Amino acid sequence: MPRFFKKSKRPGTSPGTLIHVGEKKAEKAKITLIDYDESQVQEKEVKKIEECFPFKDKPTVTWINIDGLHEIEIIEKLGKTFNLHPLLLEDILNTGQRPKIEDFEDHIFVVLKMLYFDEEQYEIISEQLSLIMGSNFVISFQEREGDVFNAVRERIRNGKGRIRKMGPDYLAYALMDAVVDHYFVILEKLGEEIEALEEDLITYPTTETMQGIHELKREMIVLRRSIWPLREVISGFERGESILVSDATKIYLRDVYDHTIQVIDAVESFRDMLSGMLDLYLSSISNKMNEVMKVLTIIATIFIPLTFIAGIYGMNFNSEASPLNMPELNWYYGYPAVWLIMLGIGVFMFFYFRRKQWL
Amino acid sequence: MPRFFKKSKRPGTSPGTLIHVGEKKAEKAKITLIDYDESQVQEKEVKKIEECFPFKDKPTVTWINIDGLHEIEIIEKLGKTFNLHPLLLEDILNTGQRPKIEDFEDHIFVVLKMLYFDEEQYEIISEQLSLIMGSNFVISFQEREGDVFNAVRERIRNGKGRIRKMGPDYLAYALMDAVVDHYFVILEKLGEEIEALEEDLITYPTTETMQGIHELKREMIVLRRSIWPLREVISGFERGESILVSDATKIYLRDVYDHTIQVIDAVESFRDMLSGMLDLYLSSISNKMNEVMKVLTIIATIFIPLTFIAGIYGMNFNSEASPLNMPELNWYYGYPAVWLIMLGIGVFMFFYFRRKQWL
Amino acid sequence: MPRFFKKSKRPGTSPGTLIHVGEKKAEKAKITLIDYDESQVQEKEVKKIEECFPFKDKPTVTWINIDGLHEIEIIEKLGKTFNLHPLLLEDILNTGQRPKIEDFEDHIFVVLKMLYFDEEQYEIISEQLSLIMGSNFVISFQEREGDVFNAVRERIRNGKGRIRKMGPDYLAYALMDAVVDHYFVILEKLGEEIEALEEDLITYPTTETMQGIHELKREMIVLRRSIWPLREVISGFERGESILVSDATKIYLRDVYDHTIQVIDAVESFRDMLSGMLDLYLSSISNKMNEVMKVLTIIATIFIPLTFIAGIYGMNFNSEASPLNMPELNWYYGYPAVWLIMLGIGVFMFFYFRRKQWL
Amino acid sequence: MPRFFKKSKRPGTSPGTLIHVGEKKAEKAKITLIDYDESQVQEKEVKKIEECFPFKDKPTVTWINIDGLHEIEIIEKLGKTFNLHPLLLEDILNTGQRPKIEDFEDHIFVVLKMLYFDEEQYEIISEQLSLIMGSNFVISFQEREGDVFNAVRERIRNGKGRIRKMGPDYLAYALMDAVVDHYFVILEKLGEEIEALEEDLITYPTTETMQGIHELKREMIVLRRSIWPLREVISGFERGESILVSDATKIYLRDVYDHTIQVIDAVESFRDMLSGMLDLYLSSISNKMNEVMKVLTIIATIFIPLTFIAGIYGMNFNSEASPLNMPELNWYYGYPAVWLIMLGIGVFMFFYFRRKQWL
Amino acid sequence: MPRFFKKSKRPGTSPGTLIHVGEKKAEKAKITLIDYDESQVQEKEVKKIEECFPFKDKPTVTWINIDGLHEIEIIEKLGKTFNLHPLLLEDILNTGQRPKIEDFEDHIFVVLKMLYFDEEQYEIISEQLSLIMGSNFVISFQEREGDVFNAVRERIRNGKGRIRKMGPDYLAYALMDAVVDHYFVILEKLGEEIEALEEDLITYPTTETMQGIHELKREMIVLRRSIWPLREVISGFERGESILVSDATKIYLRDVYDHTIQVIDAVESFRDMLSGMLDLYLSSISNKMNEVMKVLTIIATIFIPLTFIAGIYGMNFNSEASPLNMPELNWYYGYPAVWLIMLGIGVFMFFYFRRKQWL
Repeated sequence: MPRFFKKSKRPGTSPGTLIHVGEKKAEKAKITLIDYDESQVQEKEVKKIEECFPFKDKPTVTWINIDGLHEIEIIEKLGKTFNLHPLLLEDILNTGQRPKIEDFEDHIFVVLKMLYFDEEQYEIISEQLSLIMGSNFVISFQEREGDVFNAVRERIRNGKGRIRKMGPDYLAYALMDAVVDHYFVILEKLGEEIEALEEDLITYPTTETMQGIHELKREMIVLRRSIWPLREVISGFERGESILVSDATKIYLRDVYDHTIQVIDAVESFRDMLSGMLDLYLSSISNKMNEVMKVLTIIATIFIPLTFIAGIYGMNFNSEASPLNMPELNWYYGYPAVWLIMLGIGVFMFFYFRRKQWL
Repeated sequence: MPRFFKKSKRPGTSPGTLIHVGEKKAEKAKITLIDYDESQVQEKEVKKIEECFPFKDKPTVTWINIDGLHEIEIIEKLGKTFNLHPLLLEDILNTGQRPKIEDFEDHIFVVLKMLYFDEEQYEIISEQLSLIMGSNFVISFQEREGDVFNAVRERIRNGKGRIRKMGPDYLAYALMDAVVDHYFVILEKLGEEIEALEEDLITYPTTETMQGIHELKREMIVLRRSIWPLREVISGFERGESILVSDATKIYLRDVYDHTIQVIDAVESFRDMLSGMLDLYLSSISNKMNEVMKVLTIIATIFIPLTFIAGIYGMNFNSEASPLNMPELNWYYGYPAVWLIMLGIGVFMFFYFRRKQWL
Repeated sequence: MPRFFKKSKRPGTSPGTLIHVGEKKAEKAKITLIDYDESQVQEKEVKKIEECFPFKDKPTVTWINIDGLHEIEIIEKLGKTFNLHPLLLEDILNTGQRPKIEDFEDHIFVVLKMLYFDEEQYEIISEQLSLIMGSNFVISFQEREGDVFNAVRERIRNGKGRIRKMGPDYLAYALMDAVVDHYFVILEKLGEEIEALEEDLITYPTTETMQGIHELKREMIVLRRSIWPLREVISGFERGESILVSDATKIYLRDVYDHTIQVIDAVESFRDMLSGMLDLYLSSISNKMNEVMKVLTIIATIFIPLTFIAGIYGMNFNSEASPLNMPELNWYYGYPAVWLIMLGIGVFMFFYFRRKQWL
Repeated sequence: MPRFFKKSKRPGTSPGTLIHVGEKKAEKAKITLIDYDESQVQEKEVKKIEECFPFKDKPTVTWINIDGLHEIEIIEKLGKTFNLHPLLLEDILNTGQRPKIEDFEDHIFVVLKMLYFDEEQYEIISEQLSLIMGSNFVISFQEREGDVFNAVRERIRNGKGRIRKMGPDYLAYALMDAVVDHYFVILEKLGEEIEALEEDLITYPTTETMQGIHELKREMIVLRRSIWPLREVISGFERGESILVSDATKIYLRDVYDHTIQVIDAVESFRDMLSGMLDLYLSSISNKMNEVMKVLTIIATIFIPLTFIAGIYGMNFNSEASPLNMPELNWYYGYPAVWLIMLGIGVFMFFYFRRKQWL
Repeated sequence: MPRFFKKSKRPGTSPGTLIHVGEKKAEKAKITLIDYDESQVQEKEVKKIEECFPFKDKPTVTWINIDGLHEIEIIEKLGKTFNLHPLLLEDILNTGQRPKIEDFEDHIFVVLKMLYFDEEQYEIISEQLSLIMGSNFVISFQEREGDVFNAVRERIRNGKGRIRKMGPDYLAYALMDAVVDHYFVILEKLGEEIEALEEDLITYPTTETMQGIHELKREMIVLRRSIWPLREVISGFERGESILVSDATKIYLRDVYDHTIQVIDAVESFRDMLSGMLDLYLSSISNKMNEVMKVLTIIATIFIPLTFIAGIYGMNFNSEASPLNMPELNWYYGYPAVWLIMLGIGVFMFFYFRRKQWL
């Protein structure tokens, strides 16, 4: 159940108290810094967060990325230096947030969910990504190291495309775009799984198929919780009135927004399809039971009367005590006649079931 | 599953990177150009996209239609000449878009879904149609050659109706109208299929019927995803404030809007009907099982007691050892009496089932 | 399926092309004209539509009613004389429209659905009624002659009530009111049918009951499609800003609006009730099956062990070959003892089933 | 079905025609008049409605209550004297109205539904209450005499609380409050019934339980139709801009509004609970069937093979004709061996079912 | 059912009449007073409510907490002294309120639901918390003593965090935050229960599992009723225009709002999961029944024909009366042949079931 919600610190503690809520997913927090403008790029991994602070007042775009949330003092120091609201810091540490956007005038705070597919557990893992975007910096917090942002880093290094020419709002967009783009990878995985299950359903449905449908439905619940609020986040970013977001970037945000809608669309379609598959599964169980019943009924209705007849002539009524007692046993054609009667009943039953379309 | 969503290029690549996403559906891109005003029409198939550029500055209405999206340089050149936003170009190539409308001041960009019914695969195929409408041109992009626009071409050639007298907004309307009109053909196909399935349901429901309902439900999911957003697209076109759309054309757009609503209405009705059919199917399975059970129960409850009686008189208790041992076997009317008892039980059972309305 | 949607002319034809879509329901179009003001009424059936045109410029209220849509030239001539938009004329002829209202400044165009109950086919038939209301005229188009408007005609002739004192907006209201009032007749029919089905459900549910529920659900789908949009039509009429509708009439329109809501309410309640009945039906099938199963199980579990015992003593082990071989057969109380054992098993089973509440 | 909707007069009759629609629930209309201000109260039962008219122009608050709607002339005379719109009068008489509010500037018209629980028929009875509130009068119309307003009358007589100090708007509020308060009595009844059904479900579900759930669901449909629109009525009263409603009264209206929401909430919760109970019922039927099946299967699978073995040794192969023919019958330990084999099979089966957790 | 709604006093009584509705949950009302500003804290338990009144006009923040609602005179006196509306007082006493917020200009009234988990009854208990916030005081009413506010009291005593520096709006926020934080404890409990049930479902589903799902679904209904309206309450607090709420506090309110959304989200996810589990349960019952049926059918279809054959050769036809009568009995290989035939049938059946994938 921990995947479904996380307690937000201890009830009753003072708001703004910094406590890391969630599993400790990384050994040590890793801090990387990229500072760039159109003409130059500087990239380094820093040991102490204080090394980043000189960049705060430089006009260049500074991107500080922190992987691992358990070292609270890093976040505290950042908060003091960049003048961040205590509740914002609390939200970064509390990894049970919903995706949301908050505008603190001189910086914008965004919470997103990064989704990974855990091949071993065969389930979707949701991780929190917090972004703070100011007039000349972007700070990103991840629960553990991931490779989703590598392509963005590469684009900054190469200086290809627009990224080096534009401000931190474009960088924030690029990071969000990378996250949303990654959702499509998840969707593809799920799509394949659904397809495989559907094939199973049609060829040979088992209890595992049902279990599979059920698990996918649960995954959908996780997905929806992560993705639905994203729509409002991005539209809040795009339509917000913050001066931190330029008009040029807004066109790009519209694009991420479209992608988000596409993802939501796909998730809803998957849900519909899974419901359809459930119906199909249940009806296929019913059908199977029906078939089993038919076999039983055919065998039983044919042989029960026949066995009864055999039983009749197995009775030991004394034919010497009375001429009425089972004279058939002494008839010349008694035995063949019984066989004929039995055959007759069998043939009649056969055609009866034919007519009922059971055979 | 590829029908349900398409990955939007590689995650993390720079936005505006032009990569064709989707199957290559045509061998070579085919470019046709129609240039007309009230007095004249010029129509030609061009080999190189550059041949179209001179028409850009002519006051006449120019319609450039491109079938096949895999030749990226064509789209790139068009983008440069007509000054189109890189994200717009990316959207044209990425065929997993939802229908949408975007207003770039000097041109309007519309994405629609064209639906075909593949008679062989017996499924609905969705293709992307992108439209760019400027002050004196319309550019349309299709994934492969289709015949949906032939009627529009014919109307331009003949000069009948309003089309030659009005601007590119009317042409864009005419193209959208042709697409929406084509949806009705699909609806009719689906309607017929539903009707056939319903007849099957009532006369003789099989597993195939269920499969058929399931498949149609899936088709509905595809349809809804293509058609629902269309409503907003067309209403955005009609109610938008763009100076590119004249008031005269808006009345016509209202008409396409009405048609879209009709299509949505029909799709929703189909969905409701399919749900109803599913219920009917499941209850018909239950009914059948019930009937099978009844036959089994009737046969078993009649013959099991009779067989028991026959079994009794097939016991070998030695009547010589004790006068209490099966004296019935030596009675004068023993055998007929047993027959009478059995008949009695049979008749009683018959009336019992009658009263229970099983017969 | 034709009841569910109708193709809107041939895809790709020029908008405003007048083609009658739908069955030809009347032999010849019938044109009736009523012209009245407070002091006088003039009523006649005209052969040629041209006879109506002189009334166009008279200050009196003129009501032209046309039954039958297949004579396109009538509609064309009307369109020219009264200056109607070609799309409006197309909508009149295309009987697959949804109810809608369109305001063309100097006239208002309304499409409604008239519902009849076909006693023979036992289904609801939906017919299109188009109304055009100008400053001094109302033109109504029906697919075939009906008697819904007779009461309105009578009120005009008698001069009772408000109708003769008020303008064409009140006449249009009166016609819409007659249509909506007629819906209640349909609702009553459906209500009776539902009640009958419900009684069947409780007393003796059969496959026909299920079929009946299914058919009523389908009727509901038709009804909803006709009635839901009506709400917006009438509220559009009432709240619209057209100068053609007087404030005095708006109070009356509010009344029709209330009736429409009542109809929608009833349809939704019927839907809910039908769903409930479906549940009841399915559970009653399950219950029946359960009962069948119980009878089978009781008979089988009582007699199978008894038959086994009888079978035991029907074995032919040679008691002369060994004293261990079936000595019971030679016991003095053997046979009565077996009977007692069997009776004991029977009585035990009876109380066992009693305790399980199967009997 | 009459509980679900009532035809609104004959279709096509002139609007404002006064016809009483509904059952005649009272023998004779009963008119009571209460006239009060802060200092005095006057209360009388009047025979003729004309006796009330002198109070119309007195500054005191006059409450005219009419029980019984079938004497149309009373309503007509009231309409003339108090200058009421004909459609309003029609709505009073037509008892199939939805709850609604209409503002006629100098008076406000409110339609509510009073709910009674008929202990004999064991169903909810819905009755129409119409209220007209003017600047110095309130007129209330009920279908028959009820005791819901007695407490309000008592409060006027006693002069306790606010009622005598405030205007007709507070009186109208007090009446509405009494109606809504009475809903809680109904809810309690339903709540008890649901609780009783739920207990049945868990201890011993029968077909009657299902029937009970179904009937309660139907009651819920009636309830919802009466209560949902009430929300808008009261919020219309509170938020309306009529000068007839004072700010002091509005605070009290907010309170009734809260109660209405509470009632709606409870109805929705009841609906959810009934759905849950339906699921529980269906699964308990399935469980029971499963149990029945298990008993049958256990008995059958144990005894059928045993009976078969007994059948084998009941065969009459002639052991004198060949030494291969049933030599077992002559073995010394033949019979005990057969018993041992049978016991072995029985024990094996027992443990097999144990392992399958059927026992 | 008392958990689902409570009657709001006796119908018809005057509004503002103070009657305690609900169980008497505490023996004696307990009144605690905390008075603080940045420099000092004063805390005492008072015997008589009058002891609190002197603090009313002090500029310090005064928090009066009352546990136990049955001593009406306390509430009456408070109402007079703090000038509270009679309806507000009625709402405090009537514990069946929905969460709501009401703005009385000089004070804000908030009703919340506190949720406890009763470990013994194993159900969620909902208690009403009423808050009145004025310019320098907060009064809170609880049904009985609880420990949810202890952490807040501790923070006031310690003077840590912001609470001592800010006004009564922050105190009100802190109390609401404590309530909402406590919801997460409930959610965790439910989450664990759901997880346990899910495990049961997969390993060994019983009727208790179903009962458990049903009970959790009911708990969800209670939860939803308490939590959904909370959203609007807190957003009303945050977005309201009251001068009593400072901007600094609004940021904190936004945070509680986020938590409320998280709680709602979790509840909705739980509901979805429970629905999924219900489906899984029903399908697992079906599967089990299917398996039971298969065992029965396999045993019956194998042994019924064999028993029939044995029955045949148990017939007593007199082979001396005719050479046609059962000559097999005297054949040399008769008995072994019958065994072979039986074995053959058994083997054939085995492979038949294999092919049908029943084994």
